[in-house]
Amino acid sequence: MTQEEQHAQSPAGTGPAPSDRYARGMAALAQVTGTEHPAVLDPVAEIAPDLARFTIEFGYGDVWSRPGLTPRQRQIATVAALAALGNAAPQLRFHIGGALNVGCTRREIVETFIHATVYAGFPAALNALSAAREVFAARPAGEGADDDDLSRPGPADGDRYQRGLEALRAVDGPEGVHVVRSLDDIAPDLGRYLVEYVFGDIYARPGLDLATRELASVAMCTALGTAGPQLRVHLRAFLNVGGTREEIVELMTQMAGYAGFPAALNGVAAAREILAEHDRA
Amino acid sequence: MTQEEQHAQSPAGTGPAPSDRYARGMAALAQVTGTEHPAVLDPVAEIAPDLARFTIEFGYGDVWSRPGLTPRQRQIATVAALAALGNAAPQLRFHIGGALNVGCTRREIVETFIHATVYAGFPAALNALSAAREVFAARPAGEGADDDDLSRPGPADGDRYQRGLEALRAVDGPEGVHVVRSLDDIAPDLGRYLVEYVFGDIYARPGLDLATRELASVAMCTALGTAGPQLRVHLRAFLNVGGTREEIVELMTQMAGYAGFPAALNGVAAAREILAEHDRA
Amino acid sequence: MTQEEQHAQSPAGTGPAPSDRYARGMAALAQVTGTEHPAVLDPVAEIAPDLARFTIEFGYGDVWSRPGLTPRQRQIATVAALAALGNAAPQLRFHIGGALNVGCTRREIVETFIHATVYAGFPAALNALSAAREVFAARPAGEGADDDDLSRPGPADGDRYQRGLEALRAVDGPEGVHVVRSLDDIAPDLGRYLVEYVFGDIYARPGLDLATRELASVAMCTALGTAGPQLRVHLRAFLNVGGTREEIVELMTQMAGYAGFPAALNGVAAAREILAEHDRA
Repeated sequence: MTQEEQHAQSPAGTGPAPSDRYARGMAALAQVTGTEHPAVLDPVAEIAPDLARFTIEFGYGDVWSRPGLTPRQRQIATVAALAALGNAAPQLRFHIGGALNVGCTRREIVETFIHATVYAGFPAALNALSAAREVFAARPAGEGADDDDLSRPGPADGDRYQRGLEALRAVDGPEGVHVVRSLDDIAPDLGRYLVEYVFGDIYARPGLDLATRELASVAMCTALGTAGPQLRVHLRAFLNVGGTREEIVELMTQMAGYAGFPAALNGVAAAREILAEHDRA
Repeated sequence: MTQEEQHAQSPAGTGPAPSDRYARGMAALAQVTGTEHPAVLDPVAEIAPDLARFTIEFGYGDVWSRPGLTPRQRQIATVAALAALGNAAPQLRFHIGGALNVGCTRREIVETFIHATVYAGFPAALNALSAAREVFAARPAGEGADDDDLSRPGPADGDRYQRGLEALRAVDGPEGVHVVRSLDDIAPDLGRYLVEYVFGDIYARPGLDLATRELASVAMCTALGTAGPQLRVHLRAFLNVGGTREEIVELMTQMAGYAGFPAALNGVAAAREILAEHDRA
Repeated sequence: MTQEEQHAQSPAGTGPAPSDRYARGMAALAQVTGTEHPAVLDPVAEIAPDLARFTIEFGYGDVWSRPGLTPRQRQIATVAALAALGNAAPQLRFHIGGALNVGCTRREIVETFIHATVYAGFPAALNALSAAREVFAARPAGEGADDDDLSRPGPADGDRYQRGLEALRAVDGPEGVHVVRSLDDIAPDLGRYLVEYVFGDIYARPGLDLATRELASVAMCTALGTAGPQLRVHLRAFLNVGGTREEIVELMTQMAGYAGFPAALNGVAAAREILAEHDRA
């Protein structure tokens, strides 16, 4: 039997069997919408019933309901990716609501968008935050609020460079310092901002643990598809701060639905490199 | 005479002579708008009359009116590219209308957007479908309807993997199976989804022939500019299912107007590689 | 002392000291908004006060207020980048207003968007122009108007190929002609459009000097992140028409805020290559 025939006879992989994909998808979608009978795809079904079905079967039945990432991780990764892409406002609002529905806090969502300034720029982050404001305003007051006050400030100004350097080392190891140093000959201040702003201001913030920050970074770099070197840096960093191989693979699989299969396949190619390097070390 | 001087004296290429570019452009634009005297660029002309003129002369006079792709092919490629970019809603609506005006059916447009889930993700596809719903609703009821009912379902669930594998072989030849197999060691389920969802669910659908599907795939990968390996796979696939060298070159030329010259030039660089490989085979 | 420790103790670079970042940022923001007490970030501060603070401290205090680019150059680069990204309409409108506030003319802004057709496609350019029309309409009639009439036409049709070839040589030197000639075997008409449309119609226009055109080209290619070969061509061209190393580095630093750090870092990597090549020559 050729390898190809084996593929035909026994699909590789360990995911759920193909039966009940629709039912499983509807159950997952119900979690995201927080309603028993989600109607969000009804307008789609009017003119493209199969697209509505695929969204449920593939997006929610095959992918979202997989183990390997928690619903909270999936929703943080999704809102990060949609914030970075910046071109799918209705879905961003929907998934901010979904993040709240599966237990993310308002603070975690806001932190994810503050984190997005680094990877997608301030305009994308500010627009995502506007979407969050709208979604929060339409919800009951206490919902998704955690003990934290949203307006609680992050770390005081203090020695941002020193604080950033420590965060950079904790997250990226020696490679991060190397990236900064490589800018010395051409754009030293950009290197300084990388330490002070990205690591001193953002990574050192409470409100989102480092593994979730790196999950969001990897999601954004994968979805954008324009940040190959940075995707590799952050895949390493995600492993450094406790992320797993399984989570990386699940994340890439999830990105197929939100940024397309090319983005996911290119993400897997980067992951293969970094995981091989990690296995050797 | 140097090669450079030749360029100056006799522009290379076989396109129409530069005279009457405006008149030819207006005639093309009239086909797309379905009106004798298109006024769509009048608001542009108010503050940037040259931009309005360039759109007509270059976009429609030079490019759109060229032979090599039919008006239907041009409109399918354009709505596919704009759906994937996801950041030009007014133009997407305009060109959905244009697609209907040059003879595309509603089903073909809807199928193009279902196909877009694969290359640009579900959010981009769902937003394009919303645009289509708006455009369809504003049109006379029967226009653009073909014999097909839009709500007619695609292939039944059945053996999606087997059906997908057959479609994959028909479209991509052995290379497609190789891409799937290359995921076995790291993300086997993503490979499975590629077979089941992309080929079993989407490529196996009626409503859009394989050559048009691949035209749309190439248009989307070129416009996104982030899917280099996939662009090459689909250029090969387009040739496999009957696409021609001329159509590829025309498509890349068309993309200059919708996604910019860098996207078009990078697309041509990929096409050069694949066409050279094809000529050798 | 290791190099790393030096980094910790004395941040590299020549930017302003970290004190007073907020005050300096507010002063810069006041220039952009044209108001003494800018309130534009108040809605952000309601749910993400630190993001509002970072926008002011980092975006305006650290970056915008740096020397190396004039406020006019910064605003042209920003509106060019946001036009190309196409996914941040509120910020695009804000920065069109900001461009007027720091002394750009309406014509320069419109020219920047006409120029954007080349790098980001006509849809992105047309949408940016719509944003400009809105912003202009909400302003006092004479403001930002220069001696030029916005409706003054560019160069007449004439010999577009010859005019384009001259502009191509002036801007890109022999490399530009090489790019065009490299298309002869596969897409000669695309090469012709590059000469006729990009250089004959666009680069030869008055209303924006060549250095500003190339600044905008580099900003767009950097922000898009999908135009690596073209970014390198235009970095060379920017140096050819009088741009400086410092301006390039400042522009990349500015792009960190509008398109994210990955875009900026990839831009610096390209700049390092081209500047090294330039130093050798």
